[in-house]
Amino acid sequence: MPVGVGLIGVGTVGGGVITTLACNHETISMRTGLDVRLVHVAEKNPKQLDGFALEGVRVSSDAAAVIADPEVQVVVELIGGLEPARTFILRALSAKKHVVTANKMLLAHHGAELAEAAAAQGVELRYEAAVAGTIPIIKALREGLVANQVSAVYGILNGTCNYILSQMTEKGLEFGDALAQAVTLGFAETPPDLDIEGFDTAHKCQIIASLCYSTPVSLDDLHIEGITRITHADVADAKELGYLIKLLAVVRSIEGEVEARVHPTLVPLNHPLASVWNEFNAVYVQSDIADVTMFYGRGAGRMPTASAVVSDIVDIAGRSGHPAMPAFVYARRLPIRDMGKLVGRYYLRMSTEDKPGTLAKICFALGRQQVSIASCFQRETGVQGRVHVVVMTHESQEAAVRKAIEEIDGLDCIWGASQLIRVL
Amino acid sequence: MPVGVGLIGVGTVGGGVITTLACNHETISMRTGLDVRLVHVAEKNPKQLDGFALEGVRVSSDAAAVIADPEVQVVVELIGGLEPARTFILRALSAKKHVVTANKMLLAHHGAELAEAAAAQGVELRYEAAVAGTIPIIKALREGLVANQVSAVYGILNGTCNYILSQMTEKGLEFGDALAQAVTLGFAETPPDLDIEGFDTAHKCQIIASLCYSTPVSLDDLHIEGITRITHADVADAKELGYLIKLLAVVRSIEGEVEARVHPTLVPLNHPLASVWNEFNAVYVQSDIADVTMFYGRGAGRMPTASAVVSDIVDIAGRSGHPAMPAFVYARRLPIRDMGKLVGRYYLRMSTEDKPGTLAKICFALGRQQVSIASCFQRETGVQGRVHVVVMTHESQEAAVRKAIEEIDGLDCIWGASQLIRVL
Repeated sequence: MPVGVGLIGVGTVGGGVITTLACNHETISMRTGLDVRLVHVAEKNPKQLDGFALEGVRVSSDAAAVIADPEVQVVVELIGGLEPARTFILRALSAKKHVVTANKMLLAHHGAELAEAAAAQGVELRYEAAVAGTIPIIKALREGLVANQVSAVYGILNGTCNYILSQMTEKGLEFGDALAQAVTLGFAETPPDLDIEGFDTAHKCQIIASLCYSTPVSLDDLHIEGITRITHADVADAKELGYLIKLLAVVRSIEGEVEARVHPTLVPLNHPLASVWNEFNAVYVQSDIADVTMFYGRGAGRMPTASAVVSDIVDIAGRSGHPAMPAFVYARRLPIRDMGKLVGRYYLRMSTEDKPGTLAKICFALGRQQVSIASCFQRETGVQGRVHVVVMTHESQEAAVRKAIEEIDGLDCIWGASQLIRVL
Repeated sequence: MPVGVGLIGVGTVGGGVITTLACNHETISMRTGLDVRLVHVAEKNPKQLDGFALEGVRVSSDAAAVIADPEVQVVVELIGGLEPARTFILRALSAKKHVVTANKMLLAHHGAELAEAAAAQGVELRYEAAVAGTIPIIKALREGLVANQVSAVYGILNGTCNYILSQMTEKGLEFGDALAQAVTLGFAETPPDLDIEGFDTAHKCQIIASLCYSTPVSLDDLHIEGITRITHADVADAKELGYLIKLLAVVRSIEGEVEARVHPTLVPLNHPLASVWNEFNAVYVQSDIADVTMFYGRGAGRMPTASAVVSDIVDIAGRSGHPAMPAFVYARRLPIRDMGKLVGRYYLRMSTEDKPGTLAKICFALGRQQVSIASCFQRETGVQGRVHVVVMTHESQEAAVRKAIEEIDGLDCIWGASQLIRVL
């Protein structure tokens, strides 16, 4: 008995889903015994459908037609954004249709509402493609590592940012030039703010945190920093210290609290995450039984994302007649840990006047907050009378480091705001 | 309603399963709503049970008691080896119990028979722990990448071999010393032959090939080489050429034939598999929709392997009342590709007399077989009158390279058998 798929939105990923279901229908059916087929597509812009073989597939300009189609058992939402995606998904769930989505923004904002609506109707809401594209990380966290209590997840979850930072590292580019290159190559959306300001990574971070710790997490609780303040000088300094700079989503459990944060991070050169270059994503998981695991692949793109979407569809088809797996389990309400409590090493870079006593003032400010210096160097900047002071701290508390930086930035001899990058 | 687990064999991994089910019972139940509990354990040696909290768990010295226990729905076989494991599993399947096993040797030899027995009874036979330990690679290949036609899988699947090769690379050890160190640290079984001769990797290679290509694969069809012939000189030469030596399982589909082989391989330093060190495993997958993915983690050890075993148990519990997923689908019968047809680059090392004309003879033999040299160097060995000639070929056919080596090894000026290592 065929399983009917309805697709809302034929953009980049939607097109990939059409192609995948058509080209690999036989492979899927051979492996699973399932006959998964596209029966209805909704797309407002008929031009988007050019070039696709849609024989035997109903085509509408209206999402409602797909949702109402009695042959559609699984609705795939691929229009992105908050509305009307949210309304379409809620309507599909009300109509007792399973839903597959790649919409991380929507899940990060309204995941709880959607999960509840799915549970109320006893249908599935799946979102493998929303995090790390092609990588089956949701399945790994939810099923493969089901026996584990996860202690930490470190994710490179935005291909655009990783591409920009990789180019800054490999080619010595400044941020702006690397960004321009990413835009030219089509790796960055326009405008690229969601990516480079860290919001896209934060959406995925929120999903991982909710999933791993069975607790509701609000996007507002996340600490979010993007990569726009990273300079080539930081990248070069980091390299000299034995690190690469990566934008990481970090999710951890500490003393009954959940840490969920997104920021540039110094990753040691010998860490598996340091081998993740350009547009690739990876998720590094620490857990009590499995110890360390890492999952690597393309985080975006037409076909890689389609691979994840179709895996969700097939999973749902294979479980038909079976109680739905909840999208999120909110079994408890864990507090989100305050960033001030974070303990780690910090990379600090100060732009200072090249005058006697400057370094002493910086060291004094750090010492007063009990921030201990592990290593330190000063170097000329090429600008007359200005030098860079780079400090790597021993393990320190974030609150103390921030206080010290505030004091340092108030000194007359300091130019602009100092750089602070956390170390993995 | 609790799901009852019966465990046969409390060795290293069995102990890990007892601990995991006890310690993380609450976590599993919170996430899945399932009450998975150990109800019966069979172990011949009562000493093995020392130190485990087994309140409320029945203990037998006989596997038959576990299989016959009406409260046992899932039988976990962790005694390893061919017999009596095969008989126990067949009996459990006959009694309509689901079976979970980590027994790669048994699956590689009798996977088809066991899969058929499970299918005949409509029960599950799961084996996530049999390949790459903690890494959910079976789930990834079967479910996460279900939409894909896999073109190639490259796996580092034996922690002992990877540890030995890593130590040879990092510390400059010879094979024997690195092996002794692995034995001392408990990374190698005694005797270590299954590991270092490549058989353990071959078992896993056979499982991956059967799974990816839905075709029966006989162990006898696999080309299997271990790492015992790898010397420190090879490791050093490879490094100089920009490669690391890894023992890889390679599974590929070419022109409707399946390639399945296990041998030491030169892996480029910038390849993701080159960042997999010591006892870690990784599986690198190329497929048509997802493109490249890689899965990384511990391939052995008490708790990491238990993580995979328990994920299988929970998966089965979550599908109860649902048609069983077949362990292997043999939908077709693809031929196994002859090794002679392999096309790739080759690293060759000849130990030769330090005399005029020697290099010319080697080059002549290669040229006669149309094997073209990409790079070549000769170096002193420290042994008077003997030098090493190292050749990296352009893409060549294996049959031709082997013929050339046969001719070269017949030359008077050559000492011993020349080394041939394939390049990724």
